[in-house]
Amino acid sequence: MNTVEDIISPIAGDLERVEDEFSRLLKSSFPLVTGIAKHINIQRGKRLRPMLMLLSGRLCGELVPETYKAAALLELLHNATLIHDDVVDDAALRRGNPTLNAVWKNKISVLIGDYILARLLTTALELGNLPVIKLLAETSMRMSQGEIAQLASSRKKYMTEKEYITIIKNKTASLISASCQLGALIVSASKKQVNPLKKFGEKIGLAFQIRDDVLDIDGDETVLGKQRGTDLKNGKITLPLLYTLSQVEPAQREAVLKQVCDEQMGAVIRFIHTNGGIAYAQQYAVKCVKEAKDLLNIFPDSVYKTALLQLSDYIVYRDR
Amino acid sequence: MNTVEDIISPIAGDLERVEDEFSRLLKSSFPLVTGIAKHINIQRGKRLRPMLMLLSGRLCGELVPETYKAAALLELLHNATLIHDDVVDDAALRRGNPTLNAVWKNKISVLIGDYILARLLTTALELGNLPVIKLLAETSMRMSQGEIAQLASSRKKYMTEKEYITIIKNKTASLISASCQLGALIVSASKKQVNPLKKFGEKIGLAFQIRDDVLDIDGDETVLGKQRGTDLKNGKITLPLLYTLSQVEPAQREAVLKQVCDEQMGAVIRFIHTNGGIAYAQQYAVKCVKEAKDLLNIFPDSVYKTALLQLSDYIVYRDR
Repeated sequence: MNTVEDIISPIAGDLERVEDEFSRLLKSSFPLVTGIAKHINIQRGKRLRPMLMLLSGRLCGELVPETYKAAALLELLHNATLIHDDVVDDAALRRGNPTLNAVWKNKISVLIGDYILARLLTTALELGNLPVIKLLAETSMRMSQGEIAQLASSRKKYMTEKEYITIIKNKTASLISASCQLGALIVSASKKQVNPLKKFGEKIGLAFQIRDDVLDIDGDETVLGKQRGTDLKNGKITLPLLYTLSQVEPAQREAVLKQVCDEQMGAVIRFIHTNGGIAYAQQYAVKCVKEAKDLLNIFPDSVYKTALLQLSDYIVYRDR
Repeated sequence: MNTVEDIISPIAGDLERVEDEFSRLLKSSFPLVTGIAKHINIQRGKRLRPMLMLLSGRLCGELVPETYKAAALLELLHNATLIHDDVVDDAALRRGNPTLNAVWKNKISVLIGDYILARLLTTALELGNLPVIKLLAETSMRMSQGEIAQLASSRKKYMTEKEYITIIKNKTASLISASCQLGALIVSASKKQVNPLKKFGEKIGLAFQIRDDVLDIDGDETVLGKQRGTDLKNGKITLPLLYTLSQVEPAQREAVLKQVCDEQMGAVIRFIHTNGGIAYAQQYAVKCVKEAKDLLNIFPDSVYKTALLQLSDYIVYRDR
């Protein structure tokens, strides 16, 4: 598989501009915020959302100055959500580094998340592009709806695959889809270009979350930078578990759900493996990526299209 | 002193329309959100911000349908902030009722606060009034800046009165000022009307927070619905303490700050009383309200102006 660095080489310069915008947005007169901004920058991940936005924009035309700003805003929205998620999950590690709440306590994490969201909104308003602001607002609402539905469902014993897909569409795929959609919107692409990119984003977004679910059970802990089974322990229902539960008798289902509650993660992970949960979820994600890639057929070949296709494969075969 | 019900009788019908909008905004297809919305509605307080907005609007002209929506949005912003504040303060009671985080845990409180903010933003965008959205965004940024500065300062031993005023201008007065400003803005008032109302709001906002500080030390616990000294215990620097610390020798100052850290609230409260901290803070608040009321001189007499003047007095003499 290609490395991410190889894949995104056609937009390496663009990404640097987004990084500059991102750092500028996190600048503050508060020493506390500056310190935390440094922490966020160290902890940041793949920059997947800005990548998708830049590539989608390049696929439809020439980038404009607003593209870089909006890409930084997307990354900011992603980071604000992660900060609050880590409070919700009481997480100690993210990408091998201590989380903000582990270092600065929950109090600061809640407030900094709010501050970043407000900063994001005022900057978005400076852009003056109402459709962009609307999309950011809707996305942020869908993300919190997804998170709430997930938390509400963790009290339930069991859910259907359809319910699960609705949750991850909101909590994860909505922002990835918005990234692709925004990239096209901002360069004034036509509906015929924007809509397939929106759907493309939704499908690779689903694949992204399902691959995360797979890695939570099957990943290499040293590569992941966190313990296997962490999501399960936090009461998240993941596709590998969900599928496996659907394949067994009610009595065995109850027994496994009790093991989840008792945090007997080794036993739960073995159960999922034995009953084909990993294979099923991975195939599901691969199918999403296949459908996503087909949606790009309408675009002529280019280095940007190639990069989007390779990035889709990366999403579903990555090991962290 | 007039009761709030008496004071606001000229806008009683307007307030009911705001209440309807507020309930509509909190409606959701999630049973969890519906349950929490009920809890928020029970727990809600004085509706001060919608009152100020309606009265400011009436002072400048005829209300428009957007007034009621925007007033509900302000109240929603206020409630979202309270929900996150209660997480930050780890508060168990608000207005004599259990806080959201005491009933539903911090996880839910963080997510519901985020959901409400996103709901607020999408609704504000439906209004399509960009200056209104900008004001809401700036206010929400100032509020979180104030909260962060307060949290950062609680690690410091001591601050100047000027630093304290900057913090409460952001964390409390900004939203109260925005309420008065918005009321005028939405009915297309002139700058000559909007600006004095904005300043009026800022001054009564300062008085409101200082009165809160006074009540935290001097209030009646059964009327307040929470323990005396709660804010101090949570590391908030309040004006009565700040003034008193400035009046004593460094050695005594250190001794009192140690008592604050050790949560010896009885001793701290006695110290503040003995050294005139309550009287000083109350006079400060009264002076703010006097200046605020003078700003309304440019408006002709009306039942709405009378109500705003009486509400200003209520703010600085209320017992909860």
